[in-house]
Amino acid sequence: MHTPGSKVSGYIVLMIVQIIFLVLFWVFVRYEKAVLPAPIAAEDAGSAKEHVSKYPQFQDIQVMIFIGFGFLMTFLRKYGYSATGYTLFMAALVVQWAVLMKGFLHMEGGKISLSLESIIDADIAAAVPLISMGALLGRTTPIQLLCMSIFEVALFAGNEYLALNILSICDCGGSITVHAFGAYFGLAVALMLRPASDQNDAGKHEGANYVSDLFAMIGTTFLWVYWPSFNSVLAEGSGGERAILNTFLSLAAATVTTFVVSALVSHENKLDMVHVQNSTLAGGVAVGTVCNLLLGAHGAVLIGIIAGTVSVLGYRYLTPWLTSNLRIHDTCGVHNLHGMPALISAIASAIVASMVTADDYQSELQDIFPAMVHGNNGTVTKIMGGLGRNASTQAGYQLFGIAVTLLIAIGGGILAGGVMKYTSFRNLEKDEQHQDEQYWEVPAVENKEEYELKITDELLL
Amino acid sequence: MHTPGSKVSGYIVLMIVQIIFLVLFWVFVRYEKAVLPAPIAAEDAGSAKEHVSKYPQFQDIQVMIFIGFGFLMTFLRKYGYSATGYTLFMAALVVQWAVLMKGFLHMEGGKISLSLESIIDADIAAAVPLISMGALLGRTTPIQLLCMSIFEVALFAGNEYLALNILSICDCGGSITVHAFGAYFGLAVALMLRPASDQNDAGKHEGANYVSDLFAMIGTTFLWVYWPSFNSVLAEGSGGERAILNTFLSLAAATVTTFVVSALVSHENKLDMVHVQNSTLAGGVAVGTVCNLLLGAHGAVLIGIIAGTVSVLGYRYLTPWLTSNLRIHDTCGVHNLHGMPALISAIASAIVASMVTADDYQSELQDIFPAMVHGNNGTVTKIMGGLGRNASTQAGYQLFGIAVTLLIAIGGGILAGGVMKYTSFRNLEKDEQHQDEQYWEVPAVENKEEYELKITDELLL
Amino acid sequence: MHTPGSKVSGYIVLMIVQIIFLVLFWVFVRYEKAVLPAPIAAEDAGSAKEHVSKYPQFQDIQVMIFIGFGFLMTFLRKYGYSATGYTLFMAALVVQWAVLMKGFLHMEGGKISLSLESIIDADIAAAVPLISMGALLGRTTPIQLLCMSIFEVALFAGNEYLALNILSICDCGGSITVHAFGAYFGLAVALMLRPASDQNDAGKHEGANYVSDLFAMIGTTFLWVYWPSFNSVLAEGSGGERAILNTFLSLAAATVTTFVVSALVSHENKLDMVHVQNSTLAGGVAVGTVCNLLLGAHGAVLIGIIAGTVSVLGYRYLTPWLTSNLRIHDTCGVHNLHGMPALISAIASAIVASMVTADDYQSELQDIFPAMVHGNNGTVTKIMGGLGRNASTQAGYQLFGIAVTLLIAIGGGILAGGVMKYTSFRNLEKDEQHQDEQYWEVPAVENKEEYELKITDELLL
Repeated sequence: MHTPGSKVSGYIVLMIVQIIFLVLFWVFVRYEKAVLPAPIAAEDAGSAKEHVSKYPQFQDIQVMIFIGFGFLMTFLRKYGYSATGYTLFMAALVVQWAVLMKGFLHMEGGKISLSLESIIDADIAAAVPLISMGALLGRTTPIQLLCMSIFEVALFAGNEYLALNILSICDCGGSITVHAFGAYFGLAVALMLRPASDQNDAGKHEGANYVSDLFAMIGTTFLWVYWPSFNSVLAEGSGGERAILNTFLSLAAATVTTFVVSALVSHENKLDMVHVQNSTLAGGVAVGTVCNLLLGAHGAVLIGIIAGTVSVLGYRYLTPWLTSNLRIHDTCGVHNLHGMPALISAIASAIVASMVTADDYQSELQDIFPAMVHGNNGTVTKIMGGLGRNASTQAGYQLFGIAVTLLIAIGGGILAGGVMKYTSFRNLEKDEQHQDEQYWEVPAVENKEEYELKITDELLL
Repeated sequence: MHTPGSKVSGYIVLMIVQIIFLVLFWVFVRYEKAVLPAPIAAEDAGSAKEHVSKYPQFQDIQVMIFIGFGFLMTFLRKYGYSATGYTLFMAALVVQWAVLMKGFLHMEGGKISLSLESIIDADIAAAVPLISMGALLGRTTPIQLLCMSIFEVALFAGNEYLALNILSICDCGGSITVHAFGAYFGLAVALMLRPASDQNDAGKHEGANYVSDLFAMIGTTFLWVYWPSFNSVLAEGSGGERAILNTFLSLAAATVTTFVVSALVSHENKLDMVHVQNSTLAGGVAVGTVCNLLLGAHGAVLIGIIAGTVSVLGYRYLTPWLTSNLRIHDTCGVHNLHGMPALISAIASAIVASMVTADDYQSELQDIFPAMVHGNNGTVTKIMGGLGRNASTQAGYQLFGIAVTLLIAIGGGILAGGVMKYTSFRNLEKDEQHQDEQYWEVPAVENKEEYELKITDELLL
Repeated sequence: MHTPGSKVSGYIVLMIVQIIFLVLFWVFVRYEKAVLPAPIAAEDAGSAKEHVSKYPQFQDIQVMIFIGFGFLMTFLRKYGYSATGYTLFMAALVVQWAVLMKGFLHMEGGKISLSLESIIDADIAAAVPLISMGALLGRTTPIQLLCMSIFEVALFAGNEYLALNILSICDCGGSITVHAFGAYFGLAVALMLRPASDQNDAGKHEGANYVSDLFAMIGTTFLWVYWPSFNSVLAEGSGGERAILNTFLSLAAATVTTFVVSALVSHENKLDMVHVQNSTLAGGVAVGTVCNLLLGAHGAVLIGIIAGTVSVLGYRYLTPWLTSNLRIHDTCGVHNLHGMPALISAIASAIVASMVTADDYQSELQDIFPAMVHGNNGTVTKIMGGLGRNASTQAGYQLFGIAVTLLIAIGGGILAGGVMKYTSFRNLEKDEQHQDEQYWEVPAVENKEEYELKITDELLL
């Protein structure tokens, strides 16, 4: 399986997948009515405009997916082509698949309706396998990664449907359905792909250099600045503005906390770029599920402080423990950036939900907590709407939602990891890991002549 | 001409151009009425807001022009200052010139009307010489480039007026008027500047290194994520959302295809960063002219697959052929990213136009295909509106439009290249190419002392 | 004070500050009414949307603060972690503090109202200490910087209130209240922290390398493209579009001018990256105060030409003079990018204000120059509205406004610098400056084995 031939067959499979997508688009997908030209008589130019009012937020999310995730993972000094390249490859494949998969779950008259909303959902779905990729970074082939992502996104769509439409939990920023799912799926795959115990040390290329750390900061800062768009894009009414404000404040508090805790727990009290690149973002994840609720500014700041602290401590103490004891090599530490902060968000959602009153949420209750409304008044479209759940029941469902998500994600990850390891997929040898050269043409000796000149200039003269 | 003096006179000419622009702005340009304060009585605050509703898309295009193009061209390892710097210089000069040139073609009462639309058009115009710059990267002086861009933008404005207002072709995303024009103009200049046959090998600095390739990926990914804004910014009504959706899907399909085809045709089946940086974007160009039409998702995906394939094959086989046989050194391969995909787009527009019916396009027919409307009903402002063209005729005009564009671009490029080569412009010697040092202060020996320390540490100890 | 213990206590103080912020948020901050769910009966979904119409501009400003400022300061070759990291740290701390400080100045019923506007204001406030940081880059500890920023933002909020609400000057893009304040405060601190005269030479790490210069260009270009959002975000009505247009044109003209003047005054007529990275942006600062006024396109272009010229000449001649004579080490040259261009903007505002007529500004006079309106007609909310100031008086107030701002900024900077120097804050030794290693874990020998291999390959074979 180590011949070029195995690469070829893997890539050909991916091309076939692309062609299947083409056929499925042809057969099933149609523009939504608002995306079609209006009849001549109609005077509703306004409708089309209204429809694309979320376009700027969509573009922010595009940047997060393609630049944010892509560059955040360039921190490995010899894996930058793969980090940015596979992000592009995976996201391009997954967004098409997500339009189809999520479309199949919401078909009308046998057709999938295509609109801006479809591709917003698709971009959000793309985040899921990218998070998992972080847990595996440098330890898989691109073929393994891409095939995993197809399976994972299908499972994600199913779990999301279960959580939001059947269990009717709130999860505005997707911390449960996106972040927890992606992180624990990826960690389960990493568990399955764990090295033999005599090969459990870090790879020789598994580290940053000064320049790769700066490239990673491009990813971090774009994720930071656009995170409010990710969390608020699906919120309705005034909840959108609350989502923006709460996410912003939680990120800010998590960032300050990250710097302080990083300095306090690190060697010689020096700041650690790993923490700065990742834990500063934990505030965005931890506030995700509850970002459109009536947290108050202090609630958002408190969540940020907790998330920053937990995330840095996770990097400092838990990740090394997982590596040495379970041999889970979570390359990017997604457990600290996505996993634990998502659990914090789920717990926070249960706490906040347990205090919800119809008086507080007024007209927005049926949108945010449809299952808490009494009687279906026609505007509730979610399956579990109008059940008259009380606040404690809703809180219970929030916890049930994260539990089910963890179960499905871990189960799915074990399955996917097993297939990746034990079937005919090629696996990377230890010394092939964390470097681009196996799958990329890499400039060999970069600048031989200048180099020699320099040597001459500086050493011999 | 190799004395500093020649640089000085070149720069002074550019300063004089800037001052001429100042005078032209003073004499001819006035704020559009909606950009002036409303009378006290008026209650049309809404109008001003409406007016700037395309501002977010404008900002996306700004990023594409200045960051996207600029960083995409940083892939040359010793030409990064020039890539980002000349992009900034050229775009800053050209946007002013484009406001004036396009304004002169649409004057009212002897004055040019300035509004957000003017600078959107100006940013789009800036893309044209930046595309041409890609075909010449590293082989011209900045003075040559800048002077070329002034001529090119004037010619572009004329050709665009001809194609859209006289021939009345559709070209929503500008693949014909912007991409084909910029690419073939640049290639014609490159033909004129071709080296003597005994100097036809690649320049010694003409290559990437690991870091410069990652900088280039910044350009690629920003172009990728914001391309839907470029293609949709001039679309009206529901066509705007179709343009977004079609562009997104075409890019995604082109990207998957690029990775697969790159692996299949490259040495040892390894992925090639040149393809990943460029061909992934071919889907955006190839869907440009037709992006607001009723392509369907499958149409967009199909175009993307074709574009990705053609673009990678072009880099792999056609570019080397052009270099060795015609001595056209298309440094960035703009023929594969802009040229051929734009031809695909033009052909696609003829095919789609041949199937247009008034029933399908309803109220949007007069905006998209004004020449197909029967009788001028007063809302058609384009010169050739209301001609009652049938679908086949419109299809023919689409092909005529690209043919005329190619003719003007290539003719203009030959003229410009001739002037650049045979008049008093300084030309770069072979060994001055593809490196910043001729025109930039470059840090000499970067970090002598650390370097020596390292040598000591690592070699001698 | 050189033991790790002093770092620890510094970071702990910052954590305590974060916790104090949490308490203040809890006690004082409440969502604005429009950010709360509407009563069920109400049909004003439109109101919430209206409210967030400035969200895309806010996001642009976020990019400017976190990516723009952060990466612009990465030009120092060994200070990239600090540049991007401290920017993130400082901005995250300051935005919270600014919400509180500016809130205290505008409380209603003892509570601070939280909305999108609050965080737009907070991001703008974050620019102030980031500008000052540029004047001190590499010469302070993070603890000094962060503590300085807390004091500075409080003083900024007071000065801004004085200038805008008491003196009632116009300053749409904040050149007076943000740029001049931040620059001269920072320069005053730099004066206080000036080295002994026998240590006045440049630090050994104080310089760029090829890669760090390219990272800095990321900052430059993002600041460039989004500057129109910074200048226009607080403008109302058609003034918003004028602010966009004027800023765009001024930047373009300043950029062309910068390249030309840089080549003309530099060694061997080569372009200087310092000028390209910074002076290209001077047009955005110089047009700031007047960007929403009826400048005309030519006015904007003229201001850009002046600003680009002054800024490059400042870098070339004034900065070295300040360093050698006053021992002010303005690392990023903020005096040339923010200081002098802001003075130009203030002078321009006096000139333009002296020509204002009620006929020209119609319905927008009361918003832009509230003190020039006769009689308070109920819509004027600023304290000094309705005074019937004439144009010359307003012009005088503009000059008074910049004078007061300079006085407060310089006074505050001297105070802050004195505290930073003479109290128990740790100060950096000369050889600890301009490098990350004191406060960051830096990858030691990056890639020892490849390095050795290379040496072997290239030297010995």
